[in-house]
Amino acid sequence: MSWQRWLAEQREERERAGLRRALRPRALGEDVLDLAGNDYLGLSAHPEVRAAAAGAARSWGAGSGASRLVTGTTTLHGELEAELADFTGRPAALVCSTGYHANLSAVTALADRDALIVSDAHVHASLIDAARLSRAAVDVVPHNDVDAVRAALEKADGRRAMVLTESVYSVLGDAAPLPELAALCAERGALLLVDEAHGLGVVGDGGRGLVAGLGEAPQVVMTATLSKSLGAMGGAVLGSPELVEHLVNRARPFIFDTALAPAPTAGALAALRLLRDRPDLPERIHHRAARLAERLGVTRSAGAVLSVPMSSPQRALAAQDAARQAGVRVGCFRPPSVPDGVSRLRITTQAGIAEDAWDRAVEVLAGVVERHRRAA
Amino acid sequence: MSWQRWLAEQREERERAGLRRALRPRALGEDVLDLAGNDYLGLSAHPEVRAAAAGAARSWGAGSGASRLVTGTTTLHGELEAELADFTGRPAALVCSTGYHANLSAVTALADRDALIVSDAHVHASLIDAARLSRAAVDVVPHNDVDAVRAALEKADGRRAMVLTESVYSVLGDAAPLPELAALCAERGALLLVDEAHGLGVVGDGGRGLVAGLGEAPQVVMTATLSKSLGAMGGAVLGSPELVEHLVNRARPFIFDTALAPAPTAGALAALRLLRDRPDLPERIHHRAARLAERLGVTRSAGAVLSVPMSSPQRALAAQDAARQAGVRVGCFRPPSVPDGVSRLRITTQAGIAEDAWDRAVEVLAGVVERHRRAA
Repeated sequence: MSWQRWLAEQREERERAGLRRALRPRALGEDVLDLAGNDYLGLSAHPEVRAAAAGAARSWGAGSGASRLVTGTTTLHGELEAELADFTGRPAALVCSTGYHANLSAVTALADRDALIVSDAHVHASLIDAARLSRAAVDVVPHNDVDAVRAALEKADGRRAMVLTESVYSVLGDAAPLPELAALCAERGALLLVDEAHGLGVVGDGGRGLVAGLGEAPQVVMTATLSKSLGAMGGAVLGSPELVEHLVNRARPFIFDTALAPAPTAGALAALRLLRDRPDLPERIHHRAARLAERLGVTRSAGAVLSVPMSSPQRALAAQDAARQAGVRVGCFRPPSVPDGVSRLRITTQAGIAEDAWDRAVEVLAGVVERHRRAA
Repeated sequence: MSWQRWLAEQREERERAGLRRALRPRALGEDVLDLAGNDYLGLSAHPEVRAAAAGAARSWGAGSGASRLVTGTTTLHGELEAELADFTGRPAALVCSTGYHANLSAVTALADRDALIVSDAHVHASLIDAARLSRAAVDVVPHNDVDAVRAALEKADGRRAMVLTESVYSVLGDAAPLPELAALCAERGALLLVDEAHGLGVVGDGGRGLVAGLGEAPQVVMTATLSKSLGAMGGAVLGSPELVEHLVNRARPFIFDTALAPAPTAGALAALRLLRDRPDLPERIHHRAARLAERLGVTRSAGAVLSVPMSSPQRALAAQDAARQAGVRVGCFRPPSVPDGVSRLRITTQAGIAEDAWDRAVEVLAGVVERHRRAA
């Protein structure tokens, strides 16, 4: 088949399924409440974070100039790694350009043809791609099913085994049974990789994430992003110094990638310091998320993202448009971004929005959701 | 085998082979000439680029807050995409977080189990990983061998076929036979993916890269990075609007990734505008690279990177240290970063360094290379 015909067919298929996506650039200073993004604590726009990012761009330049192993590692990267490790109670950290790079790096440097990966069915695309790229055998188990993980590990048959999970899942908003998974992995000599993309800054003591609550846990490899609650860009892998040294030497998506730019590195560092001093920020998320869930009549989320199931992708888009008309931007999950095929509104609880604006957003969303559910 | 034992064995293997790598953070304002990074035109630290990056961090915040399809796309991304496409003569562009993401996105959204990938043996790690991740059949052909590509395409047997190449290869510094490859792909109905990571800003008319010289060439998909000659961070895929729409809808490493942060986006845009106004910058690279190659007695490079083969990884490291002692930082290529297993000094020709400082660097490097070659 020709490329042209194939592209056209792919496009027609999307159109038929109502799943065509397009980019809609937002302008500076738009008059809208943003409950769609992942800047959970509102730190991206915090004056200290903006100033730190801008200052780094002025002092260091717009880019890091090279990969981390060549000359791309600056003292900024070192500071951020030390403070990330300290905050989350891990011995060491390695900063990557994106959360995708962090997950690709951790999984592909550890797992190979001789390893077994046991993956929760709901893990993020970056972990699915990482597992595929590693060439390890992959056993996908039902979501949050510890018994299924145990059964899969029992078939490891001498192979090094690695279990993939997230601490808080973004789409359904539920948390993983981490203590049980960690105990199981310790017992079976397996590694447990926990992606804290939606956990860091939101859950656990002072927003330290759920891995911090496991204590030392040498069997746990933690990954995180710097682009969500830390309001910047980038990712990190956290664990033992031996793990970090291994990644520096073996993780292709780390080795062959330009280092994270100075501005987001400094921005994430400033945000991390604010988070450390402001345990009330993650707390505010939980108060607001609980109230919003109640008002919308949906399941409470373990994290910051509230998921509102809708009857069809078209219905979800219509509700999203109605909220936008009323000055509130929310997200929309449609296949293939949902593990169960159910389209949803995706509403981010925001700690950075003033109380009266937040209350107004809640009322707007309650009205929109009620109308669009009834219409369905 | 236990994870602990496996990690220890891996480490011992590296030590034995003399291939242990470690991160060495650089401090602000170090008194050294940096000929190791990829900031070929010195634009990362250009006052206008710094100011643009800092201004964007102040106006927009440290991060883009969400993936491109949610709310991460800003008007900055749109401007950069339009001007990148215009500069390189492509109809459309899509900006990604890293060059790795650009290559992963382009290849995995286009190739699948029903496709054939024909890959040059020397392509970058990100293209190798992309091909593996796509699940397509991959046929690796000898470096820059058009006949081998033809033979591989003749075995496509009705499958959609895609050829992977770079315009200028970073390690050996040679250019691909692009006109021949483009003609062959047009004849066979194949796509030609050309990674201009080391070409954009360096080769072609005014630094437009080598794809620009092919004319319209609808069979060509171009990828690029914003972290090398454009001094910032990020990557891009360039081609038809249909291609870009397809990637927006199908490329997982694009869809499930937070958008490039405002500072590097604005920094790359400012650098692109400088490059457009300063065709003398890429020209200066070629003058300097030619003189340096002559002085060191090595093969001239098609791009900005000069490669100096050394007799062993240890010898390459010793020469690198000697240059550093003399105030010049150069890179060092060791396995597995070299396609042929030969360790090398990697010297970046820099257009941003003042004439007298450049001359001094050339003399330092000539001395170091001569001494370390003799010692071998």
